[in-house]
Amino acid sequence: MKAEIIAVGTELLLGQIVNTNAQYLSQELAALGIDVYFQTVVGDNMDRLQEAIRTAQKRADVLIFTGGLGPTQDDLTKDALAAVLGRSLHLDRLAMDHVEQFFKDRSRPMTENNKRQALSIDGASPLPNSTGLAIGNALSEDGKHYILLPGPPKELMPMFEEQVKNWILQHVLTEEKPLYSRMLKFAGIGESALETELLDLIEGQSDPTLAPYAKESEVTVRVSTKALSVTEAEEKLDALEAQIRARLPENLYANEDVPIEKVIVDLLTEHHLTVAVAESCTGGLLMGNLTAIPGCATVFKGGIVCYSNDMKEKLLNVPHDLLEGEEAPGAVSKETAEVLAEQVRMVMDADFGLSVTGVAGPAYSERKPVGLVYIGLSERGKPTTTFQLNLKGNRETIRLRSAKSILYQLWRRLNERALV
Amino acid sequence: MKAEIIAVGTELLLGQIVNTNAQYLSQELAALGIDVYFQTVVGDNMDRLQEAIRTAQKRADVLIFTGGLGPTQDDLTKDALAAVLGRSLHLDRLAMDHVEQFFKDRSRPMTENNKRQALSIDGASPLPNSTGLAIGNALSEDGKHYILLPGPPKELMPMFEEQVKNWILQHVLTEEKPLYSRMLKFAGIGESALETELLDLIEGQSDPTLAPYAKESEVTVRVSTKALSVTEAEEKLDALEAQIRARLPENLYANEDVPIEKVIVDLLTEHHLTVAVAESCTGGLLMGNLTAIPGCATVFKGGIVCYSNDMKEKLLNVPHDLLEGEEAPGAVSKETAEVLAEQVRMVMDADFGLSVTGVAGPAYSERKPVGLVYIGLSERGKPTTTFQLNLKGNRETIRLRSAKSILYQLWRRLNERALV
Repeated sequence: MKAEIIAVGTELLLGQIVNTNAQYLSQELAALGIDVYFQTVVGDNMDRLQEAIRTAQKRADVLIFTGGLGPTQDDLTKDALAAVLGRSLHLDRLAMDHVEQFFKDRSRPMTENNKRQALSIDGASPLPNSTGLAIGNALSEDGKHYILLPGPPKELMPMFEEQVKNWILQHVLTEEKPLYSRMLKFAGIGESALETELLDLIEGQSDPTLAPYAKESEVTVRVSTKALSVTEAEEKLDALEAQIRARLPENLYANEDVPIEKVIVDLLTEHHLTVAVAESCTGGLLMGNLTAIPGCATVFKGGIVCYSNDMKEKLLNVPHDLLEGEEAPGAVSKETAEVLAEQVRMVMDADFGLSVTGVAGPAYSERKPVGLVYIGLSERGKPTTTFQLNLKGNRETIRLRSAKSILYQLWRRLNERALV
Repeated sequence: MKAEIIAVGTELLLGQIVNTNAQYLSQELAALGIDVYFQTVVGDNMDRLQEAIRTAQKRADVLIFTGGLGPTQDDLTKDALAAVLGRSLHLDRLAMDHVEQFFKDRSRPMTENNKRQALSIDGASPLPNSTGLAIGNALSEDGKHYILLPGPPKELMPMFEEQVKNWILQHVLTEEKPLYSRMLKFAGIGESALETELLDLIEGQSDPTLAPYAKESEVTVRVSTKALSVTEAEEKLDALEAQIRARLPENLYANEDVPIEKVIVDLLTEHHLTVAVAESCTGGLLMGNLTAIPGCATVFKGGIVCYSNDMKEKLLNVPHDLLEGEEAPGAVSKETAEVLAEQVRMVMDADFGLSVTGVAGPAYSERKPVGLVYIGLSERGKPTTTFQLNLKGNRETIRLRSAKSILYQLWRRLNERALV
């Protein structure tokens, strides 16, 4: 089964965005056992788009399109494929209701061009868009399969996960055994270190297969097996997971595709514990990620972004002579991280207090190097622990890694407790 | 002048890496006024690689290859192109010396396959590799131009910068005018509404050209023109920008590709003003985005994430009877948003105080619907303004839009000030 991914969008050809959709879809298709032979990027141009479709028809069985489903004049994917297949477009009633409701709810007038987002190719299955307006399409003709997905990853990913996978299993991979996959999520370990740890398993693999999975600031492994029943699949996947867990008990934090924040919120809820956060260099990023998890309200008390030294003193009682003066350790120090974690825990009356203080760059501060970060973990009735990080990368990377590091330390602490 | 970028490498088709080279080269070529019409990714397979080359020959004048120049058996780019052009490969003496020296310096034996990295297509200009071993190639035949570059960005980028640009100017762009572009960034308006506003300009466009496209929670328009001089280009782009600005003075916030947070930090810095933030439902997301901007330390005092009512009372003095009781407006209310904005401004002694309180979902709270959000903007010596938002979408979208909305209001306030 050969697939080609066709990304449609002039912004890709101008280099304004990176084609991350191609990577995501390639990984997903590989996991389904479908070989991607070509990835093509074409602009918002009717002739060249049709040309790309005809070229792909000659060399692939499954054509997956991303982008060009939006409301504007240069969103042409459905029109182009319909033209190539000699079909027409029609307005999908349900999708149209969804679009109209969207504008009604915002009491905004719906401009005419938005109807385009509810168009569907005749004979295609409409793929509802749970996170946006433009519907996708899926259809088969003459042994070729066509799947049209929206360009924004936050619309494309759920649509693929919730609908396209099943459609592929039902319409494309008909006589194959169904595929079962499981995501194993790791923290506190780098991708290459993980691969080294699991190298023999990766190389010796046949069934289940094991594939490291590249994700932003996360280390993930996907284990997959084809089986006749869920039970058979679960047994095989459990066995491999147990093997991996035995090697990396302090890093494997979940066996489903959830961020570590989710696992932390669940553990805190389960143990009726609360957390508060004091952030300096991460400036709210950590709390922003934590509060992205539904239900965090019961375990997250709140936090303080004490960006300036004044606020560290005023709101979190950091002693002045700790922050300033020739001999002072300064804001970016083990000592300050410790006080911040303890104080925010007390001010917010939480069971745990987390702190991050460091130099995110691009400029150094306190004559300390970019990437030097101290994180603190305070727990009611226990001595506070701090960790020094020496991070590489740009401001964004350093901030993200700092936030992930203290969350990892909290997870370890909660994990020990769970094991007790 | 039409170009196609052909990335060679099975690791791209497996989704193990993202094709960032395509983005880099597309940006560089656009800057040179060369239109990239297609980007193709093909695996390390001789037949499919030759097929990709023949397809590209039909639709492009400039074929730029990345990857497949290494020492291993599946590095096939030079062999494939040589085969298609009916040429042979020869060992480039200088490149070979470079390879031998490399191993000599490390007193490591040079395995035979490393010679492949010094191979050059007959009649092609060798492109020395200043940061690696595999040389590139550049040649022209029958009005088509072929440029072969290594896959690793740290080898590809310097090679392009130091050698390929000049080669293109001398061999490809003999009388082309260079292209000049400008990004216009908008806030407080949706993509389709923007397009409706500018429809006549978009449809009537010839030079400069105008292309709208949506980035994650941002609306952007790119205006481009080909001109003989920067001055000529600037004049044409200024004229179009002025036209657009006249129509959307309250939405066009920048004429370069920067987030609104950056413009806000710059305006605050310029006017020596400071800001503090109180977040409830956004839980730190707003501050996280604001502090992503380098240099925000001088204008951002800090903030408080008051997730629970206790903390709203304790840290930001929200009256208890405002938050709880039968008749109380509650945490998610105009009144609370107002107090939060004023109090955080005073507690942090800032010029501006921003607040966000609402129901991000998935569960409703205070019997109020998901998506109901109140934002507050307090300014020293001015009455505090609040806005009610009725947002749709998932938790992530609601949180992001809430944060963007209050930032947009702050930008408008600063913009008025700048206009005074």
